[in-house]
Amino acid sequence: MADTTTDRVPIDFRTEPARYKHWKLTLDGPVATLTMDVREDGGLRPGYELKLNSYDLGVDIELYDALQRLRFEHPEVGAVIVTSGKERVFCAGANIRMLGQSSHSFKVNFCKFTNETRNAIEEASAESRQVWLCAVNGPCAGGGYELALATEWIVMADDANTAVSLPEVPLLAVLPGTGGLTRLVDKRKVRRDRADFFCTTEEGVKGKRAVEWNLVDEVVPRSRLMEAARQRAGELAARTDRPRGARGVALTPIVRTIEGDRIAYAHVTCAVDRRRGLAEITVAAPPAAPPADPAAALAQGAAFWPLAVARELDDLVLWLRTNEEPIGLWVFRTAGDADRVEAYDRLLLAHPADWFLREVRLYTKRVLKRVDVSSRSVFALIEPGSCFTGTLLELALAADRSYMLDGTGAGKPAPTLRLTAVNFGAYPMINGLSRLASRFLGEPGRVDDLKGRVGQDLDAATAASAGLVTFTPDDIDWEDEVRVAIEARTAFSPDALTGMEASLRFGGPETLETKIFGRLSAWQNWIFQRPNAVGPKGALQVYGTGQRSDFDRRRV
Amino acid sequence: MADTTTDRVPIDFRTEPARYKHWKLTLDGPVATLTMDVREDGGLRPGYELKLNSYDLGVDIELYDALQRLRFEHPEVGAVIVTSGKERVFCAGANIRMLGQSSHSFKVNFCKFTNETRNAIEEASAESRQVWLCAVNGPCAGGGYELALATEWIVMADDANTAVSLPEVPLLAVLPGTGGLTRLVDKRKVRRDRADFFCTTEEGVKGKRAVEWNLVDEVVPRSRLMEAARQRAGELAARTDRPRGARGVALTPIVRTIEGDRIAYAHVTCAVDRRRGLAEITVAAPPAAPPADPAAALAQGAAFWPLAVARELDDLVLWLRTNEEPIGLWVFRTAGDADRVEAYDRLLLAHPADWFLREVRLYTKRVLKRVDVSSRSVFALIEPGSCFTGTLLELALAADRSYMLDGTGAGKPAPTLRLTAVNFGAYPMINGLSRLASRFLGEPGRVDDLKGRVGQDLDAATAASAGLVTFTPDDIDWEDEVRVAIEARTAFSPDALTGMEASLRFGGPETLETKIFGRLSAWQNWIFQRPNAVGPKGALQVYGTGQRSDFDRRRV
Repeated sequence: MADTTTDRVPIDFRTEPARYKHWKLTLDGPVATLTMDVREDGGLRPGYELKLNSYDLGVDIELYDALQRLRFEHPEVGAVIVTSGKERVFCAGANIRMLGQSSHSFKVNFCKFTNETRNAIEEASAESRQVWLCAVNGPCAGGGYELALATEWIVMADDANTAVSLPEVPLLAVLPGTGGLTRLVDKRKVRRDRADFFCTTEEGVKGKRAVEWNLVDEVVPRSRLMEAARQRAGELAARTDRPRGARGVALTPIVRTIEGDRIAYAHVTCAVDRRRGLAEITVAAPPAAPPADPAAALAQGAAFWPLAVARELDDLVLWLRTNEEPIGLWVFRTAGDADRVEAYDRLLLAHPADWFLREVRLYTKRVLKRVDVSSRSVFALIEPGSCFTGTLLELALAADRSYMLDGTGAGKPAPTLRLTAVNFGAYPMINGLSRLASRFLGEPGRVDDLKGRVGQDLDAATAASAGLVTFTPDDIDWEDEVRVAIEARTAFSPDALTGMEASLRFGGPETLETKIFGRLSAWQNWIFQRPNAVGPKGALQVYGTGQRSDFDRRRV
Repeated sequence: MADTTTDRVPIDFRTEPARYKHWKLTLDGPVATLTMDVREDGGLRPGYELKLNSYDLGVDIELYDALQRLRFEHPEVGAVIVTSGKERVFCAGANIRMLGQSSHSFKVNFCKFTNETRNAIEEASAESRQVWLCAVNGPCAGGGYELALATEWIVMADDANTAVSLPEVPLLAVLPGTGGLTRLVDKRKVRRDRADFFCTTEEGVKGKRAVEWNLVDEVVPRSRLMEAARQRAGELAARTDRPRGARGVALTPIVRTIEGDRIAYAHVTCAVDRRRGLAEITVAAPPAAPPADPAAALAQGAAFWPLAVARELDDLVLWLRTNEEPIGLWVFRTAGDADRVEAYDRLLLAHPADWFLREVRLYTKRVLKRVDVSSRSVFALIEPGSCFTGTLLELALAADRSYMLDGTGAGKPAPTLRLTAVNFGAYPMINGLSRLASRFLGEPGRVDDLKGRVGQDLDAATAASAGLVTFTPDDIDWEDEVRVAIEARTAFSPDALTGMEASLRFGGPETLETKIFGRLSAWQNWIFQRPNAVGPKGALQVYGTGQRSDFDRRRV
């Protein structure tokens, strides 16, 4: 099987509308329309054609970019219609040739990113009050229907040609990889026996039955489809709390410098240590005090420190995940002035009605969730000069474990960490809980107690007894203990660590997102390894060749 | 890799204390002690020695049998102490050589069965009021600690030799396969960073730290271990509602006849159709009216119809799952008098305080759950002469889909189905909901409406409009529609179906059990496929050879 990730040009997640090949964004006051019109010859890699509005990672990178820009650059938009620009098809889903020629890890990474984008679409509807809906104007299969499922209203043309379907099991011997099964039974609450029939029926379901089974919300004659979608969009947009007259924030290009194994942004730097198998990531505190109010923050635009840090971390996480697969451990450090981090946190929470500050907070939440689900071990090192405070403290709480020096280092002041109000719910994990609440599942009272510590500098002994850090070696032990922990971690089987971390990180309640990243992805990854899907006679390999799959019939 | 399941003697799950090789059951009034003393040369298969109280499926079959007998044969027992009969070890977990030489499907099946037994231990504590606890009298590693985690109180010897550990990730590059990770963070609510350290530390944690981290409940000097365990067991037993003076029910041997591809019990028959890849299972209604009251039911003992059916179905499910792997579809039928099934259901629910009827209900619940998690497609065919009523209707509700004939067949009366009170909560699924509630997640009001239909004979049209069946072909279509559905089902990739069914069957809330069968098992299955674990240089293969594993370092 060809490996589309290594020995190739790295994949860059940065783009902008002027460079889109596959999507067109149309604005009409409070309603935006995002039209999918995939260029067949516009694949990210050679070897496949993106026929029938099928997509690859490149298509999804543009969708992600559009989603981000709609939220930040278009405060006036309260509803987004997704539709197809092709005459005869809505979307055929992920490109099968592309999947067939991709490595296991590339497929897994691809599904993870597309899942994150669909989750972010649902978050936009629920929390940004920019409600997405879908106008299905032709066959809508697999990943195409999963994109529709991520929106809040699906209107479908009622014609002989148009149906929704999840043909992955019957056609490809894999699962719908972007949350489709979970959203069927848990979001749309389709009856399980109907879901069973639907997911084993290549041709899918159309018309009245699709509405009756709650696979779509509405069917209308083809001629009235866009009118119906626009009417619904207008109604939804009318209920938004987003400001019609506000000015958006241009998401100017992220400046990233790569020199050898060093990746640098304005506030985030990363040193990749290939020999030891780890990436050392440092996030810098704001270089100055925060702006005085939301208007001043808005005026700073993409340079506003929390937004800039979120964008840089987002880009770095995607880069490392996709282009640095053998780097299994991410070590987070912070550097700078804790007071300034705290001051920014105060600004972020002081104006809950401000659309821009809300977007910044939600984006930071999404980036932290990306760290949580990245299939990399995460350590935090809390050393002299660090500023694990509030928003940046979340990185230590996201870590699988943290080490805090109980000592002064080379004459520097002993490190401290500091809680701010953001640690108590501003950035919920995929399980819906704050990282503090997840940490203290067994002692919820501790979270309340910690509220009394907000703003205090907690030294290593205090942080340890408060349960906020894992280990607090002293000056004598620090270097050895950290070194040994890192060496041990990077020596373990990467696969076992992925499964272990996925199981330990998300205790407590389950949500649509934990089901998608926990249960559904794990099954899909398993199937993506099995000869019935990816072997020489597997369904993904023989698709389109005219050959038949040859399955091992043993049930596991 | 050797395949320990095919071309070998089939595995039989029937046993009895007189044949135990590995466990000793001691009774002392309300407290039972189950002592694990594994015979090194007593493995189920050749090729490995069960050193250090490590176990294979044979050891676990005996544990399961002991659990069943404690519940049915010993109403006087209110607490069960699990401990080791070895001087220097509690339990080293699943035998690694055995895992190394087992096929993928055997490993998965092994983990599924051991998981079900541990879940049943927790159910015994919670619902049979027979509370399990664990006296850890030596190193307690991997599956050994997972067994301890399934009990409600872990007391451990405080000595230099004794520790609890989950060394699977560092030592074997796999996950603890029996719920350990989930129980750490979700049952015992161990802080996730401590769980991370614990699960990556071969030598484990002992003494005071084990208590502080909530890995165990209590440590005591070795000399006082059994005394402490017995004291706690006595306290727990004193709180049970089980009747001290009652007589138990002997679980007499299950009579199973296998002739060619036909498996027959008293009330359950199964025809294996190898060519078509399916098993046709028929459950017969009671041959007579139920006994008049609980005392009369108790007097019937193992012949009491609901208990006999549960035992036969249990044995059949385990047999098919383990010994008939290529049979991917189970088709359920019922036959007989619906009134009698309903009468038995009434008896079962009319005496909620009766220990025996409670055990029968709980056992039926466990057997139905085993069907749900069996990685087989399940269809129900509702034909003339059937009796899908109450308890037996659960089989149709457990099915991925059901077909009910809307017609009279060859002159027979048209089939009907019938709800009884048991369908509204007596047999919750692993998600904690009844099958009806799971079915109507999107329309909970329907469940209440159906309560008004209890006891009515519902014909195909009524059953369809009530949402109780999937399809209702008429006489003309029946044969073709059913045949085509079966042919299509058995042609799909078995792996894709397993992942799809695991995702569609359990909508709604998640529990410890759904996390174990959904998330944790899926990750483990994935890892069980990966070269880092099972390849020629994988950790499971090189264990004990002195060679080092050679890992693909790419993180997925």
